[in-house]
Amino acid sequence: MYDVGILNINSYSGINLAALIKAHPDLRLAAVVGRRSAGATLRALFPSWAGPDLPVLEEAPALDMVFSALPHGVAAQTLAPLVRAGTRVIDLSADFRLSDPAAYREWYGHEHPAPDLLPGAVYGLTELARDRLPGASLVACPGCYPTAAALALAPLMAEGLLDVEHGVIVDAKSGISGAGRTLRTESLFCEVDESVSAYGLEGHRHLPEIAQAAVSAAVGGTRGDAAVEAATAMPITFVPHLVPMTRGILATVYARPTIPVDRSTLHAIYQTYYRSSPCVRVSTTPPATKWTLRNNLCVVHPTVDARTGRLVIVSCLDNLVKGAAGQAIQNANLVLGLAETTGLPLQGVWP
Amino acid sequence: MYDVGILNINSYSGINLAALIKAHPDLRLAAVVGRRSAGATLRALFPSWAGPDLPVLEEAPALDMVFSALPHGVAAQTLAPLVRAGTRVIDLSADFRLSDPAAYREWYGHEHPAPDLLPGAVYGLTELARDRLPGASLVACPGCYPTAAALALAPLMAEGLLDVEHGVIVDAKSGISGAGRTLRTESLFCEVDESVSAYGLEGHRHLPEIAQAAVSAAVGGTRGDAAVEAATAMPITFVPHLVPMTRGILATVYARPTIPVDRSTLHAIYQTYYRSSPCVRVSTTPPATKWTLRNNLCVVHPTVDARTGRLVIVSCLDNLVKGAAGQAIQNANLVLGLAETTGLPLQGVWP
Amino acid sequence: MYDVGILNINSYSGINLAALIKAHPDLRLAAVVGRRSAGATLRALFPSWAGPDLPVLEEAPALDMVFSALPHGVAAQTLAPLVRAGTRVIDLSADFRLSDPAAYREWYGHEHPAPDLLPGAVYGLTELARDRLPGASLVACPGCYPTAAALALAPLMAEGLLDVEHGVIVDAKSGISGAGRTLRTESLFCEVDESVSAYGLEGHRHLPEIAQAAVSAAVGGTRGDAAVEAATAMPITFVPHLVPMTRGILATVYARPTIPVDRSTLHAIYQTYYRSSPCVRVSTTPPATKWTLRNNLCVVHPTVDARTGRLVIVSCLDNLVKGAAGQAIQNANLVLGLAETTGLPLQGVWP
Amino acid sequence: MYDVGILNINSYSGINLAALIKAHPDLRLAAVVGRRSAGATLRALFPSWAGPDLPVLEEAPALDMVFSALPHGVAAQTLAPLVRAGTRVIDLSADFRLSDPAAYREWYGHEHPAPDLLPGAVYGLTELARDRLPGASLVACPGCYPTAAALALAPLMAEGLLDVEHGVIVDAKSGISGAGRTLRTESLFCEVDESVSAYGLEGHRHLPEIAQAAVSAAVGGTRGDAAVEAATAMPITFVPHLVPMTRGILATVYARPTIPVDRSTLHAIYQTYYRSSPCVRVSTTPPATKWTLRNNLCVVHPTVDARTGRLVIVSCLDNLVKGAAGQAIQNANLVLGLAETTGLPLQGVWP
Repeated sequence: MYDVGILNINSYSGINLAALIKAHPDLRLAAVVGRRSAGATLRALFPSWAGPDLPVLEEAPALDMVFSALPHGVAAQTLAPLVRAGTRVIDLSADFRLSDPAAYREWYGHEHPAPDLLPGAVYGLTELARDRLPGASLVACPGCYPTAAALALAPLMAEGLLDVEHGVIVDAKSGISGAGRTLRTESLFCEVDESVSAYGLEGHRHLPEIAQAAVSAAVGGTRGDAAVEAATAMPITFVPHLVPMTRGILATVYARPTIPVDRSTLHAIYQTYYRSSPCVRVSTTPPATKWTLRNNLCVVHPTVDARTGRLVIVSCLDNLVKGAAGQAIQNANLVLGLAETTGLPLQGVWP
Repeated sequence: MYDVGILNINSYSGINLAALIKAHPDLRLAAVVGRRSAGATLRALFPSWAGPDLPVLEEAPALDMVFSALPHGVAAQTLAPLVRAGTRVIDLSADFRLSDPAAYREWYGHEHPAPDLLPGAVYGLTELARDRLPGASLVACPGCYPTAAALALAPLMAEGLLDVEHGVIVDAKSGISGAGRTLRTESLFCEVDESVSAYGLEGHRHLPEIAQAAVSAAVGGTRGDAAVEAATAMPITFVPHLVPMTRGILATVYARPTIPVDRSTLHAIYQTYYRSSPCVRVSTTPPATKWTLRNNLCVVHPTVDARTGRLVIVSCLDNLVKGAAGQAIQNANLVLGLAETTGLPLQGVWP
Repeated sequence: MYDVGILNINSYSGINLAALIKAHPDLRLAAVVGRRSAGATLRALFPSWAGPDLPVLEEAPALDMVFSALPHGVAAQTLAPLVRAGTRVIDLSADFRLSDPAAYREWYGHEHPAPDLLPGAVYGLTELARDRLPGASLVACPGCYPTAAALALAPLMAEGLLDVEHGVIVDAKSGISGAGRTLRTESLFCEVDESVSAYGLEGHRHLPEIAQAAVSAAVGGTRGDAAVEAATAMPITFVPHLVPMTRGILATVYARPTIPVDRSTLHAIYQTYYRSSPCVRVSTTPPATKWTLRNNLCVVHPTVDARTGRLVIVSCLDNLVKGAAGQAIQNANLVLGLAETTGLPLQGVWP
Repeated sequence: MYDVGILNINSYSGINLAALIKAHPDLRLAAVVGRRSAGATLRALFPSWAGPDLPVLEEAPALDMVFSALPHGVAAQTLAPLVRAGTRVIDLSADFRLSDPAAYREWYGHEHPAPDLLPGAVYGLTELARDRLPGASLVACPGCYPTAAALALAPLMAEGLLDVEHGVIVDAKSGISGAGRTLRTESLFCEVDESVSAYGLEGHRHLPEIAQAAVSAAVGGTRGDAAVEAATAMPITFVPHLVPMTRGILATVYARPTIPVDRSTLHAIYQTYYRSSPCVRVSTTPPATKWTLRNNLCVVHPTVDARTGRLVIVSCLDNLVKGAAGQAIQNANLVLGLAETTGLPLQGVWP
C-alpha cells in the first residue's frame, strides 16, 4: 500500500485522480493539496465526492508518490524539490513532456524552470514507454490530444508505413472538460452547447508533443536512424475542435502510406503492434467516443480511403481518463511494479 | 460464484446489468438472451462492450439466477416457469411489483399472467425490503420513478410526519434513457435535445407503485394499522417530465407535515432512518443528478419551505443504476447472502 | 421610426434585444451601451452578430426609448435620471417590478434606489397590463419564471377557480441561459451538462413577483376585493430547477380548484381568457419548451388530475424571448401604440 | 404571390421549408403533401407548428412551384411528371445533383429514373449558379456537406490556388438532424448524446457532389480547360462525423497551395470572391456553428498552417437552413426573379 497525494485537487484531473485512487487496491489517498482551496474539504469543492472528506492542504506532506494536476510552469517549480528529495512524481502538466528545453521555451514562452530534470523524465505514453517506467522518479503524462494522436500514429511510424515527407494531418474533436474548471466565457454552457468550432489554428501547444511522440514511435521501430531523422522533420498539421459534450476526444488522422496497403493488412499490423496493450483496442468498425466514456481504453480504427489510397486512422478516448488521470494511474502502476491495469476501469457502460 | 443470465440483453437495463455483473466478484455472466437478437453476439448489439463476446441465445439455459429486463406481460409469462422450477429471478419489469392483481389489470390493461406468484414476490425497494430479500425466489425491482419518490417519502411515512389526507405531489424529471432503446420519434435526439416536457398527465403507470411503496413505508413505521389505512387512500399526483440528458432522475416531492418541523430536525430524521443504508446519502444541500451518475447512490435532500410550512424533499439517482440494474444487483446480493453493496459503484466521478 | 438603445449589451438579454430590434420595422438600434465593454464593438462581444458593428458606448446618448438589461440595483440608479428626463424606459431588471419598496428591501437586501418611480412603473406582464402600457414612461418587464407561472395562474385567479387558502406549488425547470453570461463555476458546461438540480429552496427572488402577479390577475377578475385580499395571503411554494439546455422554461403549477372542474371546461376557460392574446397559445396536449424556442409564444396546457381533483397547469416559454427580450419588445410596441406583435417571431422552427 | 407546396412534409427539411415559406413575403404555402401522413394535419405531425393547420394531402394539386423533400429515387419518379408539366421544382434530394447518370448509378445503386431531365437541372449551390437559376424549371439543391465543403473550396479552385494533384481532405462534423426524422437506433438521443464518431469511411454519397462542385468552381475560374480536367481527377478524402447537437455542420478542409500564400492574401481572395454573396461571410477568426444556427449564412474562415504551408479552410452553416431548406428558398428567389435573400434569416441570435 502506497500513500499518495494529489496537487491541485480543485481541477477535473484532480478529482478524477481522487476517484481512481479511491478505487485502487494498492494506493491510499493520503493528502489532497490545493493552494487557493486550502482550508476547505474535498466535498466542499466537489459535493458529489462520496469518499472520505479530506481536508485540502496548502502543501504536500511526505508521501510515497505525488500526482500533480498543477498547470505548467507552476508544476515544474513545485515538483522539482520533490523529485530531488526522492518522492516519485507523476506529473500531468506539460512541463516535463518536451525533452528539448528550447522547444519548451518556444511553445510556453518562458525558460524551463528545471531543465536538469528533463533527461530523467519519462514521457509516459504508457504503450511506448513500458520499459522506461519501472522505478522512474518523474513521469510526464502526455496531453489528451497527443495520446489519441500518437496511439493512432505509432504502428505506422514503427513499421515505416507512413510517408513522413508527405506528413500528417490530425483533426481532433474534444469535449469541453479539456478546457478545465477555469472560469472562461468560452467554457460556459450556453456558449458551447449546440455548437462546434475549430481553435488553435495558429499552432496548439500539443503539436510538438505529437511530433515528439511520432518520432519516439519511429525510434521503437526497425527502420534505423534515418527514419528517425526523417520523422523529426515531418510536417504535421494539428487542428483541435470543441464539440458540445463533457468528455471524450476523437482524432481523425490522415496520411499517405509508403507502400500501398489494404484495410485488412493495416488492421493486422495494428493488432500485432497492440497485442500486449490492454488499454488499446483495435476496432474493425469506426468507434464512438462513448465507447471509452469513463474508462481507460483508447479505441483505434485504422482504415484506407480506397479511392485515394490515403490512410485514415480514427482513435478515441476519454480525455480525463486515458487522456489524463487514468493514464497517470497506468504509469504509476508500472513505476511501482504493479500490473499495468490495476484499479483501472476498462469497460464502458452504455449508453 | 453464481452463474447468472440476462433476459432481453438488447436493452439499456440489459447491458447495464451485464457491465455490473462483469465487475461483480461473486457473479459470472453465463448467458445473455434476446429473442429477436438471437444468433448475434453481445458486441454486435453494443459495440462498446469490452467483455467476453457472448453469443445471444434464444432461451435461457439452466442458471443459478436470472435477471430479466423483459417488458411487462412478456416478463411474467417467461419468468413464471423459471420461478416454479426453482431458479431465482430478479425481475426489472412491472409484472410482479403491484401486489394486487386488480391494480395490475387496471393499469396494464390485461389480466395478470401469473397471479399465483404475486404473494411470494418481494418488492425490491432494497432499503424497505431488507428482511424479506434473503433467499427470495422472485424479486420485483421497482421502477425508476418509484425508487426516487419512495426513498424521499419513506422516512416521513414511517414517522407519521406526512399529512396523508392532504396528500403528496411528486414532480419528477428524467433523462431519456428511461424510455429505453425502442425506436420512437419522441426518443430521437433532435426531438428531445434542448427541450423539457411533461407527460403522463392522464396517469402514469408508476403512480400505483409510488402509492404502494408509501404504504409499505408506513407499515414499517410505528403508527399502526390506522396509519396504513390512511396512507392507502392518500391522494398522490405524479407528473413525470423529460429533460435532455441520458441518465438521471430528480424527484421533487411536496407535502404538508402533520406537525411543524424545522430543517435540522427533518434532516436528523432522514439521517437516522437511512443510517444503515449504504446506497442512500442524506444531503444538507440540494443535489444534482450528476452526483449519482453511473453509481448506485440515491441522494435525498429533505427541507422545509419556511414561508408556507410545506415539506419539500428532493431526491435523485441514476435511473439505470439505482433505478434499475444497480438496485437489481443490490437485491441479488441480499438474496444470495452477500454484502449489500458487493460489486456496486458508490462513487461518482466528476464531471 | 424610433431611435432606441440597449444598456448592458454584453448580456444574453442585451444581444437578444439587439437581434429583435434589428428585425423590427419601427425601431432603429441607435446605441449600445456597456460600461466594462466600452470601446469594443458589438461584434467583438458577440462574434456571431451579423448586423452593423456598432461601437459600445460608456453612456447612452439621447434616445426615444431605452431598453435596460442592467442588473438590479444598478438599473434603478442608472434609469431614474432617464425616466425623470422623459426618456421612455423598458427595464428588464427586478428594480421596478415589486410595487412595495418594503418587499424590495426584504428580497434584495438594500433600500430601493428610486421609490418615487414605483407608483408610475407598469409591471409589464403584457397580457395583464395592456390597458396601462400605452404611453407608459417606465415598464418593469417580469422575470422569466414569473411570466411562465403567472400566465398559468391568471385565468384561475381571474375566475376565482383557485383555492387560494390551499395555495399553489410552482415547480419550474429552466435552461442555463437564465443564469446569464456571468462567469460562475455552476454555469460551466461540464458542471451542468447531463444533470438536473433544484436550487433556491430557501426562497427565490422571483417568488414575491409570482405572488404579486397572481394578485394582479385576481384584481382583473370579477370576484371583488375579498378575493384580492385572500390572494395576497396565498401560500406559494416556488422551486426552480436547472436542466441541461440553453433556453426554455417549463413551469408545472399545482393547485386545488374551488369547485370541481373537468378538463374541457378548464380548457375553454383558458381559451376564453387568452382569446385576444396573440402570444399565448392554449394547448390541449402537453407542450415542450422546444415549441417556444426562439419565439415569443407562451404555451399553456391546463389539465386536471382526475384521481385527486388537483389542477395541473403546464406552461412554457423561451426565457430569453417571452421571458425577457421578446416581452420587452411586446411591451414597447404597446407603449408606442404599435400592434402588439410587431417584429416578434411567433413561429417555432422544428427541431 | 406564388402558390407553393411541399412534398414529404413529415421531414425536418419539410417543416423547415414550411416555416420559411410562412415568413416569405412572396410565397404562399398552398399545400403540404405526405404519402404516409395523408389525412393528418400539419400540427399533428409537428405540434409546435403555429401557422395554419393545413391538411396533409396524398398528392400535390396544381401549384406555381413545388419544393420536394422526398428521398432520392422516389423524388425523381414523383417530380419528373411535374417538371414535364411545367411546374417549377426545387428538389432537395440527390436525384438531380450529379450531372452524370453513371455516377448516379454507382453511388445510388440503381439506374437514374429520369436521365432526360439531368441536362436541364441546375445544381443549386446558389453562389456558383446565379446565372443559371433565373427561370430554371428544375433546381437540384446540394447536400449539406457539399454546400459547406464547396463554399470553402470554390475561391481556391477559381483562382487555381489549390494543388489539385495533391488533393483535398474534407473532415466534416455534423449535428444529428442531418440523419432526418427516420427511426434508427443510431439517431436515438441516448446513443448520440455525449459522443462523437466518424462514419461513411467506405465512401459517403456526398463525395461525388463535392468533387463535381469543386470542378464547377474551377470552370467558373480563369484557368481554362486543363484546370477543369485536372480538377476532375482530384483525389478527395471526405470523412463525415456526428457530434451531439441538433443543427450545424463544420467542415475543415485541408489542401496544399500551388504557390505560397499568406493569411491576409488568402483572406482578401475569399473576400473578393464572395463580395456579392449576401449569404456567405468571410471571417478573420474561426467561427462556431452556433453563429449560423437557424440562419442562412455560411461562414468561411480561410487560413494557412504557417509551419507546413498547408491551407486550412473552416466553413460552417446550419445543415437545415443554408444546407437544405434555406438554400432552397434562396434558389427559388432567383428562379422567380426575386431578391436573393427575400424572406431569409441572416442574423443569428445568441446563445
